[in-house]
Amino acid sequence: MTASPKRIVLAARPHGEPKPSDFRLEDYAMPELGEGQVLLRTIWLSLDPYMRGRMNDAASYSAPVAIDAVMEGGTVCEVMASNSDAVAKGDLVLAHSGWQTYSVVDGNILRKIDPSLGPISTGIGILGMPGMTAYTGLLDIGQPKAGETVVVAAASGAVGSAVGQIAMIKGARAVGIAGGKEKCDYVKNELGFSDCLDHRDPDFAAKLKAACPDGIDVYFENVGGEVFEAVFPLLNFFARIPVCGLIASYSDTADTTPKWAGKMMRTILTKRLTFRGFIVSDFAGRRGDFLRDMSVWVKEGKVKYKEFVTEGLDSAPEAFMGLLKGKNFGKQLVRVGPDKV
Amino acid sequence: MTASPKRIVLAARPHGEPKPSDFRLEDYAMPELGEGQVLLRTIWLSLDPYMRGRMNDAASYSAPVAIDAVMEGGTVCEVMASNSDAVAKGDLVLAHSGWQTYSVVDGNILRKIDPSLGPISTGIGILGMPGMTAYTGLLDIGQPKAGETVVVAAASGAVGSAVGQIAMIKGARAVGIAGGKEKCDYVKNELGFSDCLDHRDPDFAAKLKAACPDGIDVYFENVGGEVFEAVFPLLNFFARIPVCGLIASYSDTADTTPKWAGKMMRTILTKRLTFRGFIVSDFAGRRGDFLRDMSVWVKEGKVKYKEFVTEGLDSAPEAFMGLLKGKNFGKQLVRVGPDKV
Repeated sequence: MTASPKRIVLAARPHGEPKPSDFRLEDYAMPELGEGQVLLRTIWLSLDPYMRGRMNDAASYSAPVAIDAVMEGGTVCEVMASNSDAVAKGDLVLAHSGWQTYSVVDGNILRKIDPSLGPISTGIGILGMPGMTAYTGLLDIGQPKAGETVVVAAASGAVGSAVGQIAMIKGARAVGIAGGKEKCDYVKNELGFSDCLDHRDPDFAAKLKAACPDGIDVYFENVGGEVFEAVFPLLNFFARIPVCGLIASYSDTADTTPKWAGKMMRTILTKRLTFRGFIVSDFAGRRGDFLRDMSVWVKEGKVKYKEFVTEGLDSAPEAFMGLLKGKNFGKQLVRVGPDKV
Repeated sequence: MTASPKRIVLAARPHGEPKPSDFRLEDYAMPELGEGQVLLRTIWLSLDPYMRGRMNDAASYSAPVAIDAVMEGGTVCEVMASNSDAVAKGDLVLAHSGWQTYSVVDGNILRKIDPSLGPISTGIGILGMPGMTAYTGLLDIGQPKAGETVVVAAASGAVGSAVGQIAMIKGARAVGIAGGKEKCDYVKNELGFSDCLDHRDPDFAAKLKAACPDGIDVYFENVGGEVFEAVFPLLNFFARIPVCGLIASYSDTADTTPKWAGKMMRTILTKRLTFRGFIVSDFAGRRGDFLRDMSVWVKEGKVKYKEFVTEGLDSAPEAFMGLLKGKNFGKQLVRVGPDKV
């Protein structure tokens, strides 16, 4: 190994928005390879909103990251040494090895990447967790029909951009919501959404209503907060709301009660709405369908994606804090190491 | 016709709980039979919680009853005269002819009753709308699995009693909630639920928790209010909540924001809950399955039902006001006329 392994650990639990001192970059000693284990060198690290939830010491769908433990995250890695029959030295794999340059993990939990499907970074992007989140949440829960209106926020992001493009493939109208003119222009002009509204616009709610003259049939919920406030009255009878994330409230420090909340059950009943929370692993059995469809859509140019790359492991905390504030533009990746050493 | 036709109309929109002056009993002149129309004599009138919503001048899944218009409701009727090829004089039919002794309706919207399936009153009870509401909401949305815990309120009522008994047929544990010892004893001892809690008990929430040691997998929501308050923290990961009714809040005059509301979206996400509102007509295609299964279950004694009958059309307002307060015990019916005249 040419350089000492480095990792970023959770130094403190953030109160509200994370700050630099909540993270700590440190050297560490790589453990010996045990039976069935492999040594991984991290090439790409994915940064995703769900990580904010893992920084809290609270019940969620997954255990929190412990103080002084390495921050978790999906990665694309090269196998540098293997004591496992599952993978061999030189293999490129998907791992969940976190914010570190090297790691030792069990070989049999790794998934090999097929480089013929696309650039290896897409294994944690459009052909990975974010893409599959969009695919399963939209198709299995949202179930858009031709002619229906699908609304998604964070529409220039990894999940949102895929949601809208899949909706259009299924014949639905896609309306995006994003932060700022540059992102909205990209969503409309490059991705082909019918419209994209800037949630920072003071007239956002009125413009969203105008952009959805037939109401909203599917709202893919990945932000929460004030965006949902504007969406709620526009929901049609029998609307479906896959609840995938609530990035706007991940850093809330108290339970706030939004205006719509008191009406929520009544509206679920009268409009016969479906709300269903999910995470991508709930649909693990759909992985084959997803890879088959999405790799074709990407190759045919029907689904475009954008990557937003920062360089070096030490860039991860700032990039992550920016992601929570919407500063990224496209799938947020950290280039931890070169493709080949 | 031996007696002048009588009907009960909506005299005023109730503010809060309905009171006697919101209804008016009046004579009226029967219109002539037009082409395709039939004259119906009401035998049984069903009283149901949804009627409270129809009394409000507010958006719901159905238009409100107009002031001075006859209160709506499901009925079992005898065809007294027919200008329709669909039904003949003497036929027994299901209608939605409302709170009146006679009515003139189009023949082709009527559904003939098969008296071999059970007493004709069951056509608006266990073999009718309430039974099918329980069947479709529980099976199509709730989807209980063997060993899971299903909780239902108003458990001695027409819908709730069927929900719990169908859950048990599917191998699930049924826990009921009802008002008062007599109803709870019936639900436990006659219907065979694992337990039934009195929501008036000051220790209700703690007792519900104790009765659901493995949490709640399906909560069939037909009451709302404080019962849901107690249910909410007990919901398991992947719990399903068919939202069928909110009787506890039908007479609310202001939008109150319950304590759980601010946490609702977060909990939907982290526990991957499914909330889905429905009314029975959303599942019209399941009518054949329902009648086939339920008529067998009733004949085999696997599903028991109880009727709570008041005598005469003029008893309907007081019976309905009592229903909203939980004074009924079993399916609330009004005997409007004899089986045969």
